[in-house]
Amino acid sequence: LAASLAVGERLGVSGRAFLEAFLTGFEVECKIAEAINPRHYVGGFHSTGTIGTFGAAASAAKLLKLTPPQTAHAIGIAASMSSGIRVNFGSMTKPLHAGRAAENGVTAAELASRGFTAGDDGLDGEWGFFQVMGGGADVSRIVPALGKPFSIVDPGVSFKPYPCGSLGHPTMDAMLKLVTDHDVKPDRIARVRVRAGSNILNPLRYKTAKTELEAKFCLPFMMASIALKRRAGIREFTDEFVSSPPVQAMMSRVDTVFDQAIEARGFDKMRSIVEIDLTDGRKLSQPSDERYRGGPERPFTREELHEKFTDCASLILSSDRIRHALDAIESIDQVKSIRDLTAALVQA
Amino acid sequence: LAASLAVGERLGVSGRAFLEAFLTGFEVECKIAEAINPRHYVGGFHSTGTIGTFGAAASAAKLLKLTPPQTAHAIGIAASMSSGIRVNFGSMTKPLHAGRAAENGVTAAELASRGFTAGDDGLDGEWGFFQVMGGGADVSRIVPALGKPFSIVDPGVSFKPYPCGSLGHPTMDAMLKLVTDHDVKPDRIARVRVRAGSNILNPLRYKTAKTELEAKFCLPFMMASIALKRRAGIREFTDEFVSSPPVQAMMSRVDTVFDQAIEARGFDKMRSIVEIDLTDGRKLSQPSDERYRGGPERPFTREELHEKFTDCASLILSSDRIRHALDAIESIDQVKSIRDLTAALVQA
Repeated sequence: LAASLAVGERLGVSGRAFLEAFLTGFEVECKIAEAINPRHYVGGFHSTGTIGTFGAAASAAKLLKLTPPQTAHAIGIAASMSSGIRVNFGSMTKPLHAGRAAENGVTAAELASRGFTAGDDGLDGEWGFFQVMGGGADVSRIVPALGKPFSIVDPGVSFKPYPCGSLGHPTMDAMLKLVTDHDVKPDRIARVRVRAGSNILNPLRYKTAKTELEAKFCLPFMMASIALKRRAGIREFTDEFVSSPPVQAMMSRVDTVFDQAIEARGFDKMRSIVEIDLTDGRKLSQPSDERYRGGPERPFTREELHEKFTDCASLILSSDRIRHALDAIESIDQVKSIRDLTAALVQA
Repeated sequence: LAASLAVGERLGVSGRAFLEAFLTGFEVECKIAEAINPRHYVGGFHSTGTIGTFGAAASAAKLLKLTPPQTAHAIGIAASMSSGIRVNFGSMTKPLHAGRAAENGVTAAELASRGFTAGDDGLDGEWGFFQVMGGGADVSRIVPALGKPFSIVDPGVSFKPYPCGSLGHPTMDAMLKLVTDHDVKPDRIARVRVRAGSNILNPLRYKTAKTELEAKFCLPFMMASIALKRRAGIREFTDEFVSSPPVQAMMSRVDTVFDQAIEARGFDKMRSIVEIDLTDGRKLSQPSDERYRGGPERPFTREELHEKFTDCASLILSSDRIRHALDAIESIDQVKSIRDLTAALVQA
């Protein structure tokens, strides 16, 4: 998306051309990800950084109207720029992977447009991306599968309901349901227990968080934020809020518990149970919904989407500008120049 | 070197500080390369691009006087920028790997100097560079081995005598010896045969070359250039010279022959025999020297070094400027500001 916006803005393309380029990059990236040996991610590469580079390159190639040989070179150059490893999860370098993927993909396409060359078989050659960085791929899942169906239709996309590790999201929704259904005030909470399997507890490894970056991987913070604010949005994931005394005190009342019964049900779904002990002795309990809110099985309502956009955009835009930007986004297929959209995303 | 020059020039450091930074980067890069599982290169990564990133980061970190934690972050960020695969050998993207390594290493150090963070164990963590991109490393060859001895002393460095794939260099020297010892004029050459094993013949895969990039991997071009010019320098590796009728005609007189006896002696050395059939019926033969000219066993003389520098520099500098630049380089440890050197490398 960043690549399509950046190149599209420079060229002043129509909203329709922008959409085509974005969807092209999206499809290329998804098909590559579906084809490559799972060892690629399991072994420690961060696909957002590595495979995202190809999506950005394909999207930029479309906007730059590269010829097929130039597009092949763009993909080959991208194969030598593709990077990003998971050791940097939980640090500033993790989100950098996404930005670098966009930057590198655009650079690869720009170089190819100027006649820069790469090997002929950047993806599936003997020393190509698939072999070197994934130990192979099922290439029958790429070319014959392109657009049949488009990955954005099936399996579809997920939007993150919260700005943190997705493994905590169903548990956060369960907590939100408990505190709203029973109107639980923060000072009535004695203890909170989150029961879950190792698929959730291991990656969300912080027992307490001192910073925003730790909070993104800390279940007690996620519970504390919802207990105190009934939300955990972009304004709660800040160093100030995370380190504030009420949050620190609430986090100390949250325990995470490995649950053998949940573990035995497998790793495929994000399953958990939230239990709240109230100061009056009552106990509340809520299992998480296995269907990911924001995902294809339980998509965001239009209101939830607007709410998320508004929450994030409010950091830099006034409410008038946010409405204006939303209008531009919702009529993107009619927009004459994508510059109208990028202009709408900046506070005047 | 590019990283040290770029950062050193911006900061205006002394020649001595520049040398320390260059040697630090050189040592870090070599020790990482010596420690990582050979699978890293054998599997298709191009170490110049991947491991070079760490050398550039270390060198820039030294010049920017990063604290130890900042330096660790620089290495961690570099681990997520490290890239370059061998599918692009023989294309413009191959030399791009070296430039990108310098750029990425400097970027990593600059980000770290501004407080950007990375994972704690970018190299040897579970998902660190060594594991993800090499399947492990012998870390005892790094920290305990740093400077004991410095890799630039032992095993030492090699300079390329010719601007092309090093596997052809001993064969080119053998050809040069034949044509100079016997004063062979080009029109007296009927046929040339290069006998060698698969370690040389497979990578130098072009039977004939139409472009400079192909010529770098084409033994017949290497022989033809020396037959015609008694040299194969930066002015011969051009599209114009490679495609010229005399070169094309001479290349057609060169055969490469797989030699079972040479093959049986192993892959560790670059062994070959050059045979020339003269038009008068005489036959000349010269085996290549197993010691790489320009390498630690048979180092360049100072004159050879000057000659190579002068050949390359003459593309952009007048002979006066070349002498001035050589003076600056040879007194680098006395130079007050490295800007004096970078200024000397530009035509006034």
